[in-house]
Amino acid sequence: MRAPALGDAETRVAIEGVWPEINGGRFAAKRVVGDVVTVEADIFADGHDKIAAALLFRRSEESDWTEVPMHFVENDRWRAKFTPTENALYLYTIVAWRDLYASWCDEVVKKHKAGQPIDLELIEGRELLERALKNTGDETVADDLKALIGELEDAASSNTSKLTLLTDDRARGLVDGSGLRANETRYGKELPLWVDRTRAAFSAWYELFPRSQSSDGRHGTFDDVIARLPYVRELGFDVLYFPPIHPIGDTNRKGRNNSLTPSLDDPGSPYAIGSEVGGHDAIHPELGSFVDFDRLVKAAKSAGLEIALDFAIQCSPDHPWIKEHPEWFDWRPDGTIKFAENPPKKYEDIVNVHFYRDAFPSIWFELRDIVIFWVERGVRIFRVDNPHTKPFPFWEWMIGEVHASFPDVIFLSEAFTRPKPMKRLAKVGFTQSYTYFTWRNTKQELTDYLSELTTTEMAEYFRPNFFVNTPDINPTYLQTSGRAGFQARLVLAASLAGNFGVYSGFELCEARPIPGKEEYLDSEKYEIKAWDWDREGNIREDIALMNRLRREHGALQEFRNLRFYNAWNDQIIYYGKATASLDSFVLFAVNLDPHNAQAAHFEVPLWEFGLHDDATIGVENLVDGKKFAWTGKVQHMLLDPAVRPYAIWRLHRLGAGPA
Amino acid sequence: MRAPALGDAETRVAIEGVWPEINGGRFAAKRVVGDVVTVEADIFADGHDKIAAALLFRRSEESDWTEVPMHFVENDRWRAKFTPTENALYLYTIVAWRDLYASWCDEVVKKHKAGQPIDLELIEGRELLERALKNTGDETVADDLKALIGELEDAASSNTSKLTLLTDDRARGLVDGSGLRANETRYGKELPLWVDRTRAAFSAWYELFPRSQSSDGRHGTFDDVIARLPYVRELGFDVLYFPPIHPIGDTNRKGRNNSLTPSLDDPGSPYAIGSEVGGHDAIHPELGSFVDFDRLVKAAKSAGLEIALDFAIQCSPDHPWIKEHPEWFDWRPDGTIKFAENPPKKYEDIVNVHFYRDAFPSIWFELRDIVIFWVERGVRIFRVDNPHTKPFPFWEWMIGEVHASFPDVIFLSEAFTRPKPMKRLAKVGFTQSYTYFTWRNTKQELTDYLSELTTTEMAEYFRPNFFVNTPDINPTYLQTSGRAGFQARLVLAASLAGNFGVYSGFELCEARPIPGKEEYLDSEKYEIKAWDWDREGNIREDIALMNRLRREHGALQEFRNLRFYNAWNDQIIYYGKATASLDSFVLFAVNLDPHNAQAAHFEVPLWEFGLHDDATIGVENLVDGKKFAWTGKVQHMLLDPAVRPYAIWRLHRLGAGPA
Repeated sequence: MRAPALGDAETRVAIEGVWPEINGGRFAAKRVVGDVVTVEADIFADGHDKIAAALLFRRSEESDWTEVPMHFVENDRWRAKFTPTENALYLYTIVAWRDLYASWCDEVVKKHKAGQPIDLELIEGRELLERALKNTGDETVADDLKALIGELEDAASSNTSKLTLLTDDRARGLVDGSGLRANETRYGKELPLWVDRTRAAFSAWYELFPRSQSSDGRHGTFDDVIARLPYVRELGFDVLYFPPIHPIGDTNRKGRNNSLTPSLDDPGSPYAIGSEVGGHDAIHPELGSFVDFDRLVKAAKSAGLEIALDFAIQCSPDHPWIKEHPEWFDWRPDGTIKFAENPPKKYEDIVNVHFYRDAFPSIWFELRDIVIFWVERGVRIFRVDNPHTKPFPFWEWMIGEVHASFPDVIFLSEAFTRPKPMKRLAKVGFTQSYTYFTWRNTKQELTDYLSELTTTEMAEYFRPNFFVNTPDINPTYLQTSGRAGFQARLVLAASLAGNFGVYSGFELCEARPIPGKEEYLDSEKYEIKAWDWDREGNIREDIALMNRLRREHGALQEFRNLRFYNAWNDQIIYYGKATASLDSFVLFAVNLDPHNAQAAHFEVPLWEFGLHDDATIGVENLVDGKKFAWTGKVQHMLLDPAVRPYAIWRLHRLGAGPA
Repeated sequence: MRAPALGDAETRVAIEGVWPEINGGRFAAKRVVGDVVTVEADIFADGHDKIAAALLFRRSEESDWTEVPMHFVENDRWRAKFTPTENALYLYTIVAWRDLYASWCDEVVKKHKAGQPIDLELIEGRELLERALKNTGDETVADDLKALIGELEDAASSNTSKLTLLTDDRARGLVDGSGLRANETRYGKELPLWVDRTRAAFSAWYELFPRSQSSDGRHGTFDDVIARLPYVRELGFDVLYFPPIHPIGDTNRKGRNNSLTPSLDDPGSPYAIGSEVGGHDAIHPELGSFVDFDRLVKAAKSAGLEIALDFAIQCSPDHPWIKEHPEWFDWRPDGTIKFAENPPKKYEDIVNVHFYRDAFPSIWFELRDIVIFWVERGVRIFRVDNPHTKPFPFWEWMIGEVHASFPDVIFLSEAFTRPKPMKRLAKVGFTQSYTYFTWRNTKQELTDYLSELTTTEMAEYFRPNFFVNTPDINPTYLQTSGRAGFQARLVLAASLAGNFGVYSGFELCEARPIPGKEEYLDSEKYEIKAWDWDREGNIREDIALMNRLRREHGALQEFRNLRFYNAWNDQIIYYGKATASLDSFVLFAVNLDPHNAQAAHFEVPLWEFGLHDDATIGVENLVDGKKFAWTGKVQHMLLDPAVRPYAIWRLHRLGAGPA
């Protein structure tokens, strides 16, 4: 607590409850270029005088402040908006002052209305104009003020005409423009806002194992991946993400289905990074060379796809670091390195570096440099493996260092852990975050979770990326749902979150589990797979549809605009997204029961358009393109999983007349 | 935002969401001596290692820190408690670290249970003991650690016995005691806690106009007040509060009922402070001398009553300051001082000082010195008039200055304004606050308001003082309620809040209004009144009962322990308070309808005692002293305003056996 001092006397206007303000300004709120940032605060002073306030923002610490007037909302709450235009760190703060002239105007008008004499008040008003004139450094303002004062002298004897001159918009504007501010108080903090490029908040990921892309059992190469780009692009994705592409260790290599007894030709888990060929800055030789990789990055770009790499810090026992930097590892009394474990579970094919003692700060620099190594090869998106098992200060430092030179780099946090560490990772700088989506299946679970993500403080800094599956997660729901379940989860992920992801095989409705586990049987993590991409019952069309709708409808490119609406059936979740202008308004209904047709009456949100409950609104079925109209708020739907477990409608006003 | 730097690397444990923390530590939470302070925070680190945390507190900045271990609650939330014992400023913060030894214990026990070899682990455990030994500066701990290491060497060959030695409480306690803490992280702030004396949170105020205490129309004196002390004490109050006792101005003096045409013998409003006789540091001559005042303070003390004075900063046009310090006032173009007004309302008998420009800082010092002047005359409680019309920084500075020398001074904020300024005044230092209680009449209004006061952040810094009436507020409800309404509002105020107050006349059920206003007719503010204190229908017995119960029952001396219970009638509000031990458990039911008998089934909170719904519990009717028992959770009550509109019961377990 600051000792109260006379020096604080000038902070006469209280500014508190500023939103957004993450951990008291310790962490940045997040937006993307072009987003509207709404800043609010409680602002008030003692007494009955009028106050005024302004939001100040600037691009980092070098730039000048831009001032935006704040507007009174209600209950001492004020608000202003601004739109950051650069992929960079912004700062914002608030300034407020007693507006003597507005107070004077308010008082004199009340007295005049009450029939009280205002002669003295008019003199005082003129004196305020003269103070404003004295205060301003702006010549135009000064000239206009002088002119106004002259007009006042000319205004014959009528108090009413003087009052009009003194209280109209011109006079108020001139005094504002003069910068006359009593007891100007500045909020004590400059709050950070990190502004990313658009893809940080709106992206569709497709994950594949490059080594499985030959389709003939041969070890796939980057060229095989290039051949697959049209497929991925046809599905409509814009990010193509690979598990680690680095050399894989031999020691304790895992065999099929995570066995400890691999056969000689088992390729091992790509997460066992490092062999005598190289470590995190090398490429697994069977995938290709750096030349091949560069060609892939370029080809992907041409196909509208951005490559995302995995950043997994662990090492195989054969990683070059172990000889070069023994100080980065935990050595045991018997001269071995402790392998990764979560007792009684063991991960025999990997060992972890540590971050402190004699590994500090050399390992920090090395890891940052590895990220920058790939950044300089054209990779600007990293999915980070298990970041919650590495120190938060490391991430904050490392991401800060990378962003200082490459603000366009996107980091996706693959943390499946407790809520608070997941949030902390987003706060320390991760651009996007894996979520609990995979385990939120019922209408109530989904509604609660999405409400938390879109309406609480999380919405200011935590950007979910809804993966429908991952090489590690074969969701229980999908193991028994059949095709309809895949369609339902696809529509949910692609419409509820700004970022979503699919691990290849999902489009084929692949779901064979290791019994009793959320793991895939014959997991691609431990073997090369040859997929039949045209497998019967695939949902490629649904995926292409969802990605097309996301691109075409502005409402789907926002996240915080999600609203749940009433459908009277616990198996049918029903929600919408709209742009502020209502130019784009899309409704989704999903049958969460993959085995039975479900029907429901539901409410068409006519009120969002300012329409009464019996009004008619235009509808376009975005699945089949048919156009029709709904009259009346309550309508009925039937969603049959045998046909299609979801419906998507666009709403639009009919005609150009008034509602 | 701090630029992330390698220097932050050691802050590996996240500490956030600390509670209480008012405006990010800018303002102090409040407690009284002997209160238990519960501090909570979200505390977590990366990975799976065990962590530990401690709360640190100290009495201001000179003292040493006392450390209290924090305990895990759930969901990364940790908690600790401490009890401040002095009327002073305390500071608290949090420290947390990775507990390597607890992690080791956890891991080795799991492995041993899973039948895995632990030979290496046991060596590593011993190495941790040796690190602890190296770390400790405590000789006893060192000796005990050496003994333990010796025993380990002796422990033959059994891994199980070594494991027991290494993981039992002795070993853990020794490592804790050695101070071995990895990645110790300190919360970045030292948070302030202002600890008042008990009366700050628990007091019963009686307000009277000294000049009306002669009871024969003569101008009352301090000696007349002394004669009235037994009456006030008999009612059970402990604070006796006077409106201003300073000389009253003549210029523009107000007559009866706020008229502008006083007769010569009208005494004027005591809020028009200052005449040629003196100002804020003088006594109105007709009340007596300083000698008389000192005698009154002493006599009150003997009667268990503490005198509270009014601190009202405005001046009559005759105040000596106007000549001595013209720079403290707002002079108008015609050479007059602007009188107080809230257009179109006018307060012709007072003018206001201002706090800035050439009044700064001289008026600040003068006002502080006036408070200290009265403090040194034995007054330690001030009711501050309209503090929301004076600058917040002034109050923060002034209260801080007074508390630096006289921490026992209590300031009651008489601010009836918008919620946020009222809260801010409590934050900047006011000990107690007037509230909206007078305008909260229905069950829903009272429940909502009390829930806000007792369960939100307000409970940490805002101490309500529930006045049932004031010279300025003749509540609408009481104007038509008759006696039962006075009884109901009395019981509500005295039981719902820790501090409550009564303005004299309330006990006589005085409620004659100026028609259509919440003002008293023939207000004592403008004339000397002669009350008949034995007036028929008075509720002196009810007041004495409530004040006695407040003193006798510990549950009623707390505020945040309020719980609302179910009574199925919207006119009956029903709630209880209990001490943590349940030794004191009091229930209140109040009929809010002053005109009709109301009945309700209600729930006896058997569950609070861990009793099942059909159990029997002992009851004492605290109004008539009768004892009985209730069997079963649902009981029935009838509250007849013609008899008594409230019921008060004490609950107690029957017998000594188990529930």
